[in-house]
Amino acid sequence: MEQPIYLDNAATTALDAEVLNAMLPYMQQHFGNPSSAYSLGRNVKSAIEEARKNIGTILGVKPSTLIFTSGGTESNNMAIAMAVNELRCTHIITSPIEHHAVLHTVEHYAHSRNITFSYVKLTESGEVDYANLEMQLSTQSKLGKKCLVTLMHANNEIGSLLDISLVGKLCKANDALFHSDCVQTIGHYPINLKECGVHFASATGHKFHGPKGTGLLYVSEEIKAYPLIFGGGQERKLRAGTENVSGIIGFAKALELATANYAQDSQYIAQLNQLMRKQLAAAVPGVSFNNPENSLYTVLSVCFPLSEQSDFLVTLFDMKGVCVSGGSACSSGDGGSHVMKAIGKAGACATLRFSFSKYTTEAEITRAVEITASLLQKKEVSAV
Amino acid sequence: MEQPIYLDNAATTALDAEVLNAMLPYMQQHFGNPSSAYSLGRNVKSAIEEARKNIGTILGVKPSTLIFTSGGTESNNMAIAMAVNELRCTHIITSPIEHHAVLHTVEHYAHSRNITFSYVKLTESGEVDYANLEMQLSTQSKLGKKCLVTLMHANNEIGSLLDISLVGKLCKANDALFHSDCVQTIGHYPINLKECGVHFASATGHKFHGPKGTGLLYVSEEIKAYPLIFGGGQERKLRAGTENVSGIIGFAKALELATANYAQDSQYIAQLNQLMRKQLAAAVPGVSFNNPENSLYTVLSVCFPLSEQSDFLVTLFDMKGVCVSGGSACSSGDGGSHVMKAIGKAGACATLRFSFSKYTTEAEITRAVEITASLLQKKEVSAV
Ligand SMILES: Cc1ncc(COP(=O)(O)O)c(C=O)c1O
Ligand SMILES: Cc1ncc(COP(=O)(O)O)c(C=O)c1O
Repeated sequence: MEQPIYLDNAATTALDAEVLNAMLPYMQQHFGNPSSAYSLGRNVKSAIEEARKNIGTILGVKPSTLIFTSGGTESNNMAIAMAVNELRCTHIITSPIEHHAVLHTVEHYAHSRNITFSYVKLTESGEVDYANLEMQLSTQSKLGKKCLVTLMHANNEIGSLLDISLVGKLCKANDALFHSDCVQTIGHYPINLKECGVHFASATGHKFHGPKGTGLLYVSEEIKAYPLIFGGGQERKLRAGTENVSGIIGFAKALELATANYAQDSQYIAQLNQLMRKQLAAAVPGVSFNNPENSLYTVLSVCFPLSEQSDFLVTLFDMKGVCVSGGSACSSGDGGSHVMKAIGKAGACATLRFSFSKYTTEAEITRAVEITASLLQKKEVSAV
Repeated sequence: MEQPIYLDNAATTALDAEVLNAMLPYMQQHFGNPSSAYSLGRNVKSAIEEARKNIGTILGVKPSTLIFTSGGTESNNMAIAMAVNELRCTHIITSPIEHHAVLHTVEHYAHSRNITFSYVKLTESGEVDYANLEMQLSTQSKLGKKCLVTLMHANNEIGSLLDISLVGKLCKANDALFHSDCVQTIGHYPINLKECGVHFASATGHKFHGPKGTGLLYVSEEIKAYPLIFGGGQERKLRAGTENVSGIIGFAKALELATANYAQDSQYIAQLNQLMRKQLAAAVPGVSFNNPENSLYTVLSVCFPLSEQSDFLVTLFDMKGVCVSGGSACSSGDGGSHVMKAIGKAGACATLRFSFSKYTTEAEITRAVEITASLLQKKEVSAV
């Protein structure tokens, strides 16, 4: 079969060849345990610390604030557990369109501890209502509750963006802790974590052409950090377990490449996104888009008029060699997107998410739009 | 510099070339997210399930009892957290020679919950006193406490082995849950997890020529399992987060190779171990060994008479191109081995751990013994 047209880069991305090349020596000759005292181990440890330093420079923070984890999900869990178990947060403010790695974690700790939580109001287009956030913060603070605010920097389904600096200021003013799931933005935007006033930020390597199974948690210097996973002294006793060395090296390399080529790549991808939007608007009567005005440039969330094909679109696209997502990959099989439900758009149309990378081509976009048009024109669904 | 003589295979092992080859396609063309509904994702998901099935066959258990994690440490944490948080265990019986991934986790949950714990008595050689274990189990059970027993299958420093089936029976008789840290044995022995009556067992890939950052937790069918890390529906909702796909494939491949060649490899390694023991006994006056009679065949724990060099041995060996460990890699920098302390041998001699793999050669052993003899003969320590 020919190479598919991959338009699901918000789910995961292809590993960069250059990243793989950086990883390979740590899967071959440099196999020592970073905790070992001899040079075969110490050299590997140095490579990890070099990676941490480079990431620190890119994200504008000290290396000592960065903890390597197994992914964005673990990072989110670690931040929330830390806030609730150790840092005395007794109320969590989040949003109904967070990733499940935040929502289910919040639900778990609220359920198992004496913790309350609330959702911030969203605008119609899925953006945070900052006045409502401020109001909730001040209400909770008057109740004597210490808040954790956990709001994603960019939504993975509809691309809505958070004004992270503004939320940082609101949290600071109300003595709240602030966690942001930056899984869709770290590696896609230049971000200075220190300046934006976040206490915790999560990232994952595989969303920007790095390896799967490697993540990062930033914990601001103001905060005393605590582990979620206990054991050996790795990661300055904050995350035990023999390090996924090649994963860490790959994460750093991928972030480095993403940053170095940011201006060029982001402009290119944004323009592909515009192109697809324009072509779809022309080709599909009644189509509309779920992205708010100010949106993640990698994601195009499309609302197709309901038809007999609506329930099978992802499969029909797959049969034509196009990879797209009906919601987020992580919730597939969960029976519909909680994000579309939360912004009141579930069921009103058939939502598909197209998401792009620097490897996407204009020809692929054009081909995907042709396929879309032909799929949606069919009156009958052929047996799948 | 020439390739070092690597005698620290209990800390970590070199990735098998064949394992790397099995992983590479999942770092290249098969990059889809296993949760995605299209074939590029579903094929990856199938590969994960195939890996799980193969591991299940090797370990004598249903695939559905196996959860992929980020390593042995996370597996240990998950089992202990589950027992205490969800399965109503209120007392933990462990041993003072467990890995820190067990000890520090037990301490954490004992500290943060209303949980007690106790250490089983050990024999002089570091083996579990089964009569004492039985006594403790029956005492706790009379107090109305539900116990978790967490005892490692093999100790990573001195190689002592647990009669895992016997402990399984004792736990069953006392309605206790049984977790075993099998990090040093899975991949090194043929183990049928179902038959040995364990409820939880932990493994990690990098101890048997698999990748770092991939582990496994077995949870017996009798037990309802709960997550430690919350989020997406991966691993049947028991371990959220985009899977470390290539890591999982590598784990399975490494276990498969280890099992296929078990008879040959284990015999070869055991014989190297014997050889080194014999050669050291002949070359070093006053040497003794910490391994009990019935010991892990991969590890030789050696007690050298104290000398001026004692504190620098690992470094001196390193300067001669030999990788050995003074304790376990995971505790380096911690100021001495808790295992040697627990068996009353700390300070009495200088302990070094030599550990072997199928890649170790007789020539390397002989050379390492020569180096040992020459290092220990020196009266003066040259500046390090
Ligand atoms: C916004 C967001 N948060 C968290 C995650 C979880 O990251 P991972 O699956 O790498 O753990 C994802 C994607 O999977 C995501 O899109
Ligand atoms: C007995 C034992 N348990 C647990 C671990 C932890 O495994 P990992 O470092 O892969 O998390 C190790 C080694 O590091 C070990 O030797």
